[in-house]
Amino acid sequence: MGLLGVKAIAFDVFGTVVDWRSSLIREGEALGRAKGISADWAAFTDAWQAGKEPAIERIRLGAAPWSTLDAIHRARLDLLLGQLGISGLEEEEKDQFNRAWHRLAPWPDSVPGLQRLKRHYAVTTLSNGNFSALVNMARHAGLPWDCVIAVDLFGCYKPAPETYLGAADLLGLAPGEVMLAAAHNYDLRAAHANGLRTGYIRRPLEFGPGQKTDIEPDQTWDVMAESIEELAEKMGA
Amino acid sequence: MGLLGVKAIAFDVFGTVVDWRSSLIREGEALGRAKGISADWAAFTDAWQAGKEPAIERIRLGAAPWSTLDAIHRARLDLLLGQLGISGLEEEEKDQFNRAWHRLAPWPDSVPGLQRLKRHYAVTTLSNGNFSALVNMARHAGLPWDCVIAVDLFGCYKPAPETYLGAADLLGLAPGEVMLAAAHNYDLRAAHANGLRTGYIRRPLEFGPGQKTDIEPDQTWDVMAESIEELAEKMGA
Repeated sequence: MGLLGVKAIAFDVFGTVVDWRSSLIREGEALGRAKGISADWAAFTDAWQAGKEPAIERIRLGAAPWSTLDAIHRARLDLLLGQLGISGLEEEEKDQFNRAWHRLAPWPDSVPGLQRLKRHYAVTTLSNGNFSALVNMARHAGLPWDCVIAVDLFGCYKPAPETYLGAADLLGLAPGEVMLAAAHNYDLRAAHANGLRTGYIRRPLEFGPGQKTDIEPDQTWDVMAESIEELAEKMGA
Repeated sequence: MGLLGVKAIAFDVFGTVVDWRSSLIREGEALGRAKGISADWAAFTDAWQAGKEPAIERIRLGAAPWSTLDAIHRARLDLLLGQLGISGLEEEEKDQFNRAWHRLAPWPDSVPGLQRLKRHYAVTTLSNGNFSALVNMARHAGLPWDCVIAVDLFGCYKPAPETYLGAADLLGLAPGEVMLAAAHNYDLRAAHANGLRTGYIRRPLEFGPGQKTDIEPDQTWDVMAESIEELAEKMGA
Protein backbone atom coordinates (compact mmCIF):
# COMPACT_ATOMS: atom_id res chain seq x y z
CA MET A 1 0.00 0.00 0.00
CA GLY A 2 1.35 3.39 -0.96
CA LEU A 3 0.77 6.85 0.44
CA LEU A 4 -2.79 8.21 0.68
CA GLY A 5 -4.10 4.66 0.26
CA VAL A 6 -3.13 4.75 -3.42
CA LYS A 7 -2.34 1.47 -5.19
CA ALA A 8 -2.32 2.60 -8.83
CA ILE A 9 -1.47 5.86 -10.61
CA ALA A 10 -3.25 6.56 -13.90
CA PHE A 11 -1.56 9.13 -16.12
CA ASP A 12 -2.96 11.54 -18.57
CA VAL A 13 -0.50 11.23 -21.44
CA PHE A 14 -0.56 14.12 -23.96
CA GLY A 15 1.23 17.01 -22.28
CA THR A 16 1.60 15.24 -18.95
CA VAL A 17 3.96 12.44 -20.02
CA VAL A 18 4.92 13.36 -23.58
CA ASP A 19 5.86 16.68 -25.19
CA TRP A 20 3.53 16.53 -28.18
CA ARG A 21 4.25 20.08 -29.40
CA SER A 22 8.04 19.87 -29.84
CA SER A 23 7.74 16.36 -31.26
CA LEU A 24 5.18 17.34 -33.88
CA ILE A 25 7.09 20.48 -34.88
CA ARG A 26 10.17 18.32 -35.48
CA GLU A 27 8.14 15.83 -37.53
CA GLY A 28 6.63 18.66 -39.58
CA GLU A 29 10.01 20.21 -40.24
CA ALA A 30 11.42 16.85 -41.33
CA LEU A 31 8.46 16.27 -43.65
CA GLY A 32 8.84 19.79 -45.02
CA ARG A 33 12.51 19.20 -45.84
CA ALA A 34 11.82 15.81 -47.40
CA LYS A 35 8.94 17.04 -49.55
CA GLY A 36 9.95 20.64 -50.19
CA ILE A 37 6.99 22.02 -48.23
CA SER A 38 7.48 25.44 -46.68
CA ALA A 39 5.29 26.07 -43.64
CA ASP A 40 5.36 27.46 -40.10
CA TRP A 41 5.34 24.08 -38.41
CA ALA A 42 4.88 25.52 -34.92
CA ALA A 43 1.73 27.30 -36.06
CA PHE A 44 0.67 24.19 -37.96
CA THR A 45 1.10 22.06 -34.83
CA ASP A 46 -0.84 24.52 -32.69
CA ALA A 47 -3.67 24.57 -35.23
CA TRP A 48 -3.64 20.77 -35.39
CA GLN A 49 -3.92 20.48 -31.61
CA ALA A 50 -6.55 23.22 -31.44
CA GLY A 51 -9.00 21.07 -33.38
CA LYS A 52 -8.95 18.29 -30.80
CA GLU A 53 -10.99 19.68 -27.91
CA PRO A 54 -13.86 21.00 -30.08
CA ALA A 55 -14.08 17.63 -31.87
CA ILE A 56 -14.15 15.76 -28.56
CA GLU A 57 -16.75 18.19 -27.21
CA ARG A 58 -19.03 17.53 -30.20
CA ILE A 59 -18.80 13.79 -29.50
CA ARG A 60 -19.41 14.31 -25.79
CA LEU A 61 -22.53 16.36 -26.55
CA GLY A 62 -23.85 13.78 -28.99
CA ALA A 63 -23.51 16.15 -31.94
CA ALA A 64 -21.04 13.81 -33.65
CA PRO A 65 -20.68 10.02 -33.57
CA TRP A 66 -17.86 8.24 -31.73
CA SER A 67 -14.51 8.68 -33.38
CA THR A 68 -11.03 7.77 -32.18
CA LEU A 69 -8.43 10.43 -31.52
CA ASP A 70 -6.43 9.05 -34.46
CA ALA A 71 -9.42 9.75 -36.72
CA ILE A 72 -9.93 13.20 -35.19
CA HIS A 73 -6.28 14.03 -35.82
CA ARG A 74 -6.51 12.77 -39.39
CA ALA A 75 -9.62 14.80 -40.21
CA ARG A 76 -7.99 17.92 -38.80
CA LEU A 77 -4.77 17.21 -40.71
CA ASP A 78 -6.65 16.92 -43.99
CA LEU A 79 -8.48 20.17 -43.25
CA LEU A 80 -5.26 22.06 -42.46
CA LEU A 81 -3.40 20.71 -45.49
CA GLY A 82 -6.29 21.87 -47.65
CA GLN A 83 -6.47 25.30 -46.01
CA LEU A 84 -2.74 25.85 -46.44
CA GLY A 85 -2.77 24.61 -50.01
CA ILE A 86 -0.27 21.86 -49.18
CA SER A 87 -0.68 19.19 -51.81
CA GLY A 88 1.59 16.51 -53.14
CA LEU A 89 1.40 14.21 -50.13
CA GLU A 90 0.45 10.62 -50.91
CA GLU A 91 -2.09 8.83 -48.72
CA GLU A 92 0.72 6.79 -47.13
CA GLU A 93 2.65 9.98 -46.32
CA LYS A 94 -0.39 11.59 -44.74
CA ASP A 95 -1.02 8.45 -42.71
CA GLN A 96 2.59 8.39 -41.55
CA PHE A 97 2.48 12.08 -40.62
CA ASN A 98 -0.74 11.52 -38.66
CA ARG A 99 1.04 8.73 -36.82
CA ALA A 100 3.54 11.30 -35.57
CA TRP A 101 1.07 11.39 -32.65
CA HIS A 102 2.25 7.83 -31.88
CA ARG A 103 5.90 8.90 -31.87
CA LEU A 104 5.88 11.67 -29.29
CA ALA A 105 8.93 12.13 -27.10
CA PRO A 106 8.59 11.89 -23.32
CA TRP A 107 9.52 14.81 -21.06
CA PRO A 108 13.00 14.10 -19.63
CA ASP A 109 11.60 13.14 -16.20
CA SER A 110 8.85 10.83 -17.50
CA VAL A 111 10.67 7.52 -17.98
CA PRO A 112 12.80 7.72 -14.81
CA GLY A 113 9.80 8.92 -12.80
CA LEU A 114 7.56 6.12 -14.05
CA GLN A 115 10.26 3.54 -13.38
CA ARG A 116 10.47 4.72 -9.76
CA LEU A 117 6.70 4.81 -9.29
CA LYS A 118 6.27 1.38 -10.88
CA ARG A 119 8.21 -0.25 -8.05
CA HIS A 120 5.50 0.81 -5.57
CA TYR A 121 2.38 1.44 -7.62
CA ALA A 122 0.74 0.05 -10.72
CA VAL A 123 1.22 2.67 -13.44
CA THR A 124 -1.19 2.98 -16.33
CA THR A 125 -2.31 5.44 -18.94
CA LEU A 126 -5.75 7.03 -18.72
CA SER A 127 -5.75 9.01 -21.93
CA ASN A 128 -8.14 10.33 -24.55
CA GLY A 129 -5.80 8.73 -27.07
CA ASN A 130 -6.85 5.42 -28.56
CA PHE A 131 -5.43 2.13 -27.32
CA SER A 132 -3.22 1.41 -30.34
CA ALA A 133 -1.76 4.92 -30.35
CA LEU A 134 -0.81 4.57 -26.69
CA VAL A 135 0.73 1.12 -27.22
CA ASN A 136 2.79 2.38 -30.15
CA MET A 137 3.82 5.48 -28.19
CA ALA A 138 4.90 3.42 -25.19
CA ARG A 139 7.05 1.19 -27.40
CA HIS A 140 8.56 4.19 -29.17
CA ALA A 141 9.25 6.25 -26.06
CA GLY A 142 10.09 3.41 -23.66
CA LEU A 143 7.25 4.22 -21.27
CA PRO A 144 7.12 1.32 -18.78
CA TRP A 145 3.35 1.08 -18.27
CA ASP A 146 1.95 -1.91 -16.42
CA CYS A 147 -1.06 -1.66 -18.70
CA VAL A 148 -2.67 0.71 -21.17
CA ILE A 149 -6.12 2.15 -20.47
CA ALA A 150 -7.59 4.30 -23.22
CA VAL A 151 -10.99 5.84 -23.73
CA ASP A 152 -11.89 3.56 -26.63
CA LEU A 153 -12.31 0.87 -23.94
CA PHE A 154 -15.23 2.92 -22.60
CA GLY A 155 -16.60 4.60 -25.74
CA CYS A 156 -16.51 8.08 -24.18
CA TYR A 157 -13.92 10.77 -23.59
CA LYS A 158 -12.56 12.31 -20.42
CA PRO A 159 -13.90 14.06 -18.41
CA ALA A 160 -16.84 11.61 -18.53
CA PRO A 161 -17.17 9.83 -15.14
CA GLU A 162 -17.19 6.44 -16.91
CA THR A 163 -13.55 6.89 -17.83
CA TYR A 164 -12.26 7.44 -14.28
CA LEU A 165 -14.58 4.88 -12.68
CA GLY A 166 -14.01 2.46 -15.54
CA ALA A 167 -10.24 2.62 -15.05
CA ALA A 168 -10.56 1.89 -11.32
CA ASP A 169 -12.93 -0.98 -12.07
CA LEU A 170 -10.58 -2.54 -14.64
CA LEU A 171 -7.77 -2.34 -12.09
CA GLY A 172 -9.97 -4.06 -9.49
CA LEU A 173 -9.62 -1.06 -7.18
CA ALA A 174 -11.89 1.40 -5.43
CA PRO A 175 -11.76 4.91 -6.95
CA GLY A 176 -9.92 6.21 -3.86
CA GLU A 177 -7.15 3.66 -4.43
CA VAL A 178 -6.36 5.25 -7.81
CA MET A 179 -4.61 8.57 -8.38
CA LEU A 180 -4.99 10.49 -11.61
CA ALA A 181 -1.76 12.28 -12.50
CA ALA A 182 -2.28 15.09 -15.01
CA ALA A 183 -1.02 18.49 -16.06
CA HIS A 184 -4.58 19.72 -16.63
CA ASN A 185 -6.87 21.07 -13.93
CA TYR A 186 -10.11 20.07 -15.74
CA ASP A 187 -9.00 16.44 -15.72
CA LEU A 188 -8.06 16.50 -12.04
CA ARG A 189 -11.37 18.18 -11.14
CA ALA A 190 -13.31 15.36 -12.79
CA ALA A 191 -11.12 12.68 -11.21
CA HIS A 192 -11.61 14.26 -7.77
CA ALA A 193 -15.37 14.52 -8.30
CA ASN A 194 -15.40 10.78 -8.98
CA GLY A 195 -13.48 9.91 -5.84
CA LEU A 196 -9.97 9.46 -7.24
CA ARG A 197 -6.85 10.91 -5.68
CA THR A 198 -5.17 13.68 -7.67
CA GLY A 199 -1.58 14.45 -8.64
CA TYR A 200 -0.83 17.66 -10.55
CA ILE A 201 2.30 17.74 -12.71
CA ARG A 202 3.22 21.26 -13.80
CA ARG A 203 3.99 21.46 -17.52
CA PRO A 204 4.25 25.20 -18.22
CA LEU A 205 5.71 24.70 -21.71
CA GLU A 206 3.26 22.08 -23.01
CA PHE A 207 1.64 24.64 -25.31
CA GLY A 208 4.88 26.47 -26.06
CA PRO A 209 6.40 29.64 -24.65
CA GLY A 210 3.12 31.56 -24.73
CA GLN A 211 1.13 29.04 -22.64
CA LYS A 212 -1.78 30.66 -20.81
CA THR A 213 -3.62 27.75 -19.15
CA ASP A 214 -2.75 25.15 -16.53
CA ILE A 215 0.47 26.91 -15.61
CA GLU A 216 -0.51 26.53 -11.97
CA PRO A 217 -2.84 24.22 -10.04
CA ASP A 218 -6.18 26.00 -9.70
CA GLN A 219 -6.87 24.30 -6.39
CA THR A 220 -4.99 22.22 -3.85
CA TRP A 221 -4.59 18.76 -5.33
CA ASP A 222 -3.47 15.79 -3.20
CA VAL A 223 0.06 16.02 -4.60
CA MET A 224 1.57 18.81 -6.69
CA ALA A 225 4.88 18.31 -8.45
CA GLU A 226 7.16 19.89 -11.01
CA SER A 227 7.86 16.55 -12.67
CA ILE A 228 6.99 12.85 -12.57
CA GLU A 229 10.24 12.28 -10.69
CA GLU A 230 9.08 14.72 -8.04
CA LEU A 231 5.71 12.96 -7.93
CA ALA A 232 7.60 9.72 -7.28
CA GLU A 233 9.61 11.41 -4.53
CA LYS A 234 6.47 12.78 -2.88
CA MET A 235 4.71 9.41 -3.20
CA GLY A 236 7.56 7.68 -1.38
CA ALA A 237 8.70 5.75 -4.45
CA MET B 1 7.60 -5.75 -39.92
CA GLY B 2 8.31 -9.18 -38.51
CA LEU B 3 8.13 -12.61 -40.06
CA LEU B 4 4.83 -13.80 -41.60
CA GLY B 5 3.63 -10.18 -41.68
CA VAL B 6 3.16 -10.31 -37.91
CA LYS B 7 3.38 -7.04 -35.94
CA ALA B 8 2.01 -8.15 -32.57
CA ILE B 9 1.97 -11.40 -30.63
CA ALA B 10 -0.93 -12.00 -28.25
CA PHE B 11 -0.31 -14.64 -25.60
CA ASP B 12 -2.64 -16.96 -23.86
CA VAL B 13 -1.40 -16.74 -20.26
CA PHE B 14 -2.54 -19.60 -17.98
CA GLY B 15 -0.38 -22.56 -18.89
CA THR B 16 1.29 -20.85 -21.84
CA VAL B 17 3.20 -18.16 -19.94
CA VAL B 18 2.72 -19.09 -16.28
CA ASP B 19 2.86 -22.44 -14.48
CA TRP B 20 -0.42 -22.15 -12.57
CA ARG B 21 -0.37 -25.71 -11.20
CA SER B 22 2.98 -25.69 -9.38
CA SER B 23 2.35 -22.15 -8.14
CA LEU B 24 -1.05 -23.00 -6.66
CA ILE B 25 0.21 -26.21 -5.05
CA ARG B 26 2.94 -24.19 -3.32
CA GLU B 27 0.43 -21.59 -2.16
CA GLY B 28 -1.88 -24.32 -0.85
CA GLU B 29 0.93 -26.03 1.02
CA ALA B 30 1.99 -22.73 2.59
CA LEU B 31 -1.59 -21.99 3.63
CA GLY B 32 -1.91 -25.52 5.01
CA ARG B 33 1.20 -25.10 7.15
CA ALA B 34 0.15 -21.67 8.37
CA LYS B 35 -3.40 -22.74 9.28
CA GLY B 36 -2.84 -26.37 10.22
CA ILE B 37 -4.91 -27.64 7.29
CA SER B 38 -4.05 -31.08 6.00
CA ALA B 39 -4.97 -31.66 2.36
CA ASP B 40 -3.66 -33.08 -0.91
CA TRP B 41 -2.89 -29.72 -2.45
CA ALA B 42 -2.09 -31.15 -5.87
CA ALA B 43 -5.51 -32.78 -6.00
CA PHE B 44 -7.05 -29.62 -4.61
CA THR B 45 -5.40 -27.53 -7.34
CA ASP B 46 -6.52 -29.91 -10.07
CA ALA B 47 -10.08 -29.81 -8.77
CA TRP B 48 -9.93 -26.01 -8.57
CA GLN B 49 -8.76 -25.76 -12.17
CA ALA B 50 -11.28 -28.36 -13.35
CA GLY B 51 -14.16 -26.05 -12.44
CA LYS B 52 -13.03 -23.33 -14.79
CA GLU B 53 -13.91 -24.63 -18.24
CA PRO B 54 -17.43 -25.80 -17.32
CA ALA B 55 -18.16 -22.42 -15.70
CA ILE B 56 -16.90 -20.57 -18.77
CA GLU B 57 -18.92 -22.89 -21.02
CA ARG B 58 -22.12 -22.10 -19.08
CA ILE B 59 -21.48 -18.39 -19.62
CA ARG B 60 -20.70 -18.90 -23.30
CA LEU B 61 -23.95 -20.81 -23.77
CA GLY B 62 -25.98 -18.15 -21.98
CA ALA B 63 -26.85 -20.52 -19.12
CA ALA B 64 -25.10 -18.27 -16.60
CA PRO B 65 -24.56 -14.50 -16.50
CA TRP B 66 -21.18 -12.86 -17.16
CA SER B 67 -18.71 -13.44 -14.38
CA THR B 68 -15.00 -12.71 -14.18
CA LEU B 69 -12.47 -15.49 -13.85
CA ASP B 70 -11.64 -14.18 -10.36
CA ALA B 71 -15.28 -14.72 -9.40
CA ILE B 72 -15.36 -18.16 -11.04
CA HIS B 73 -12.24 -19.17 -9.11
CA ARG B 74 -13.71 -17.87 -5.86
CA ALA B 75 -17.01 -19.74 -6.27
CA ARG B 76 -15.11 -22.94 -6.99
CA LEU B 77 -12.80 -22.36 -4.02
CA ASP B 78 -15.76 -21.96 -1.65
CA LEU B 79 -17.32 -25.13 -3.06
CA LEU B 80 -14.13 -27.17 -2.62
CA LEU B 81 -13.48 -25.88 0.89
CA GLY B 82 -17.01 -26.91 1.83
CA GLN B 83 -16.74 -30.34 0.20
CA LEU B 84 -13.45 -31.06 1.98
CA GLY B 85 -14.75 -29.77 5.31
CA ILE B 86 -12.00 -27.16 5.48
CA SER B 87 -13.25 -24.45 7.80
CA GLY B 88 -11.49 -21.85 9.89
CA LEU B 89 -10.44 -19.57 7.04
CA GLU B 90 -11.45 -15.95 7.45
CA GLU B 91 -12.91 -14.06 4.48
CA GLU B 92 -9.64 -12.16 4.08
CA GLU B 93 -7.69 -15.44 4.02
CA LYS B 94 -9.98 -16.93 1.39
CA ASP B 95 -9.68 -13.78 -0.69
CA GLN B 96 -5.89 -13.89 -0.41
CA PHE B 97 -5.81 -17.57 -1.37
CA ASN B 98 -8.05 -16.89 -4.37
CA ARG B 99 -5.57 -14.20 -5.41
CA ALA B 100 -2.91 -16.88 -5.66
CA TRP B 101 -4.12 -16.89 -9.28
CA HIS B 102 -2.57 -13.38 -9.54
CA ARG B 103 0.77 -14.62 -8.18
CA LEU B 104 1.57 -17.41 -10.62
CA ALA B 105 5.19 -18.03 -11.52
CA PRO B 106 6.30 -17.80 -15.14
CA TRP B 107 7.86 -20.77 -16.91
CA PRO B 108 11.66 -20.24 -16.95
CA ASP B 109 11.68 -19.25 -20.64
CA SER B 110 8.76 -16.80 -20.44
CA VAL B 111 10.41 -13.57 -19.28
CA PRO B 112 13.57 -13.89 -21.44
CA GLY B 113 11.47 -14.98 -24.43
CA LEU B 114 9.06 -12.06 -24.08
CA GLN B 115 11.94 -9.62 -23.68
CA ARG B 116 13.41 -10.84 -26.96
CA LEU B 117 10.09 -10.76 -28.80
CA LYS B 118 9.26 -7.30 -27.46
CA ARG B 119 12.18 -5.78 -29.36
CA HIS B 120 10.55 -6.74 -32.67
CA TYR B 121 6.86 -7.23 -31.93
CA ALA B 122 4.26 -5.72 -29.65
CA VAL B 123 3.57 -8.33 -26.98
CA THR B 124 0.24 -8.50 -25.20
CA THR B 125 -1.88 -10.89 -23.21
CA LEU B 126 -5.07 -12.32 -24.70
CA SER B 127 -6.35 -14.26 -21.75
CA ASN B 128 -9.59 -15.45 -20.23
CA GLY B 129 -8.30 -13.95 -16.99
CA ASN B 130 -9.68 -10.58 -15.96
CA PHE B 131 -7.74 -7.37 -16.56
CA SER B 132 -6.77 -6.71 -12.93
CA ALA B 133 -5.59 -10.29 -12.40
CA LEU B 134 -3.33 -10.03 -15.44
CA VAL B 135 -1.94 -6.64 -14.36
CA ASN B 136 -1.18 -7.97 -10.87
CA MET B 137 0.36 -11.13 -12.35
CA ALA B 138 2.58 -9.14 -14.71
CA ARG B 139 3.84 -7.00 -11.83
CA HIS B 140 4.44 -10.06 -9.65
CA ALA B 141 6.15 -12.16 -12.31
CA GLY B 142 7.97 -9.39 -14.19
CA LEU B 143 6.18 -10.09 -17.48
CA PRO B 144 7.12 -7.22 -19.81
CA TRP B 145 3.83 -6.81 -21.69
CA ASP B 146 3.36 -3.77 -23.89
CA CYS B 147 -0.29 -3.87 -22.90
CA VAL B 148 -2.83 -6.12 -21.23
CA ILE B 149 -5.83 -7.42 -23.19
CA ALA B 150 -8.31 -9.46 -21.19
CA VAL B 151 -11.73 -10.84 -22.00
CA ASP B 152 -13.54 -8.49 -19.62
CA LEU B 153 -12.80 -5.82 -22.26
CA PHE B 154 -15.11 -7.74 -24.60
CA GLY B 155 -17.60 -9.34 -22.21
CA CYS B 156 -17.10 -12.82 -23.65
CA TYR B 157 -14.63 -15.65 -23.26
CA LYS B 158 -12.26 -17.27 -25.71
CA PRO B 159 -12.81 -18.96 -28.10
CA ALA B 160 -15.49 -16.39 -29.07
CA PRO B 161 -14.44 -14.61 -32.30
CA GLU B 162 -14.97 -11.21 -30.64
CA THR B 163 -11.95 -11.82 -28.43
CA TYR B 164 -9.46 -12.45 -31.26
CA LEU B 165 -10.90 -9.82 -33.58
CA GLY B 166 -11.31 -7.38 -30.69
CA ALA B 167 -7.66 -7.74 -29.75
CA ALA B 168 -6.53 -7.03 -33.32
CA ASP B 169 -8.87 -4.04 -33.48
CA LEU B 170 -7.57 -2.57 -30.20
CA LEU B 171 -4.04 -2.92 -31.54
CA GLY B 172 -5.02 -1.13 -34.73
CA LEU B 173 -3.98 -4.17 -36.77
CA ALA B 174 -5.54 -6.54 -39.27
CA PRO B 175 -6.17 -10.04 -37.85
CA GLY B 176 -3.37 -11.43 -40.04
CA GLU B 177 -0.89 -9.02 -38.46
CA VAL B 178 -1.48 -10.61 -35.04
CA MET B 179 -0.23 -14.01 -33.89
CA LEU B 180 -1.88 -15.88 -31.05
CA ALA B 181 0.70 -17.80 -29.04
CA ALA B 182 -0.83 -20.55 -26.93
CA ALA B 183 -0.24 -24.00 -25.51
CA HIS B 184 -3.80 -25.07 -26.33
CA ASN B 185 -4.97 -26.33 -29.69
CA TYR B 186 -8.60 -25.17 -29.22
CA ASP B 187 -7.40 -21.59 -28.78
CA LEU B 188 -5.17 -21.73 -31.85
CA ARG B 189 -7.97 -23.27 -33.94
CA ALA B 190 -10.24 -20.34 -33.09
CA ALA B 191 -7.50 -17.78 -33.73
CA HIS B 192 -6.76 -19.37 -37.11
CA ALA B 193 -10.45 -19.44 -38.02
CA ASN B 194 -10.57 -15.69 -37.37
CA GLY B 195 -7.56 -14.94 -39.56
CA LEU B 196 -4.82 -14.66 -36.95
CA ARG B 197 -1.41 -16.25 -37.24
CA THR B 198 -0.73 -19.07 -34.80
CA GLY B 199 2.19 -20.01 -32.57
CA TYR B 200 2.04 -23.24 -30.55
CA ILE B 201 4.13 -23.43 -27.38
CA ARG B 202 4.42 -26.97 -26.06
CA ARG B 203 3.75 -27.20 -22.33
CA PRO B 204 3.55 -30.93 -21.61
CA LEU B 205 3.63 -30.45 -17.83
CA GLU B 206 1.00 -27.73 -17.51
CA PHE B 207 -1.47 -30.19 -16.01
CA GLY B 208 1.16 -32.16 -14.12
CA PRO B 209 2.96 -35.41 -14.87
CA GLY B 210 -0.22 -37.16 -16.06
CA GLN B 211 -1.17 -34.60 -18.70
CA LYS B 212 -3.27 -36.09 -21.50
CA THR B 213 -4.21 -33.09 -23.69
CA ASP B 214 -2.31 -30.57 -25.78
CA ILE B 215 0.93 -32.48 -25.46
CA GLU B 216 1.40 -32.09 -29.19
CA PRO B 217 0.07 -29.72 -31.84
CA ASP B 218 -2.99 -31.33 -33.41
CA GLN B 219 -2.31 -29.64 -36.72
CA THR B 220 0.47 -27.64 -38.35
CA TRP B 221 0.46 -24.19 -36.80
CA ASP B 222 2.43 -21.31 -38.33
CA VAL B 223 5.15 -21.69 -35.73
CA MET B 224 5.66 -24.53 -33.26
CA ALA B 225 8.09 -24.14 -30.38
CA GLU B 226 9.18 -25.83 -27.17
CA SER B 227 9.36 -22.51 -25.34
CA ILE B 228 8.77 -18.77 -25.73
CA GLU B 229 12.51 -18.36 -26.25
CA GLU B 230 12.31 -20.79 -29.16
CA LEU B 231 9.31 -18.86 -30.51
CA ALA B 232 11.46 -15.71 -30.38
CA GLU B 233 14.25 -17.53 -32.19
CA LYS B 234 11.89 -18.77 -34.90
CA MET B 235 10.30 -15.32 -35.25
CA GLY B 236 13.70 -13.73 -35.84
CA ALA B 237 13.70 -11.83 -32.57
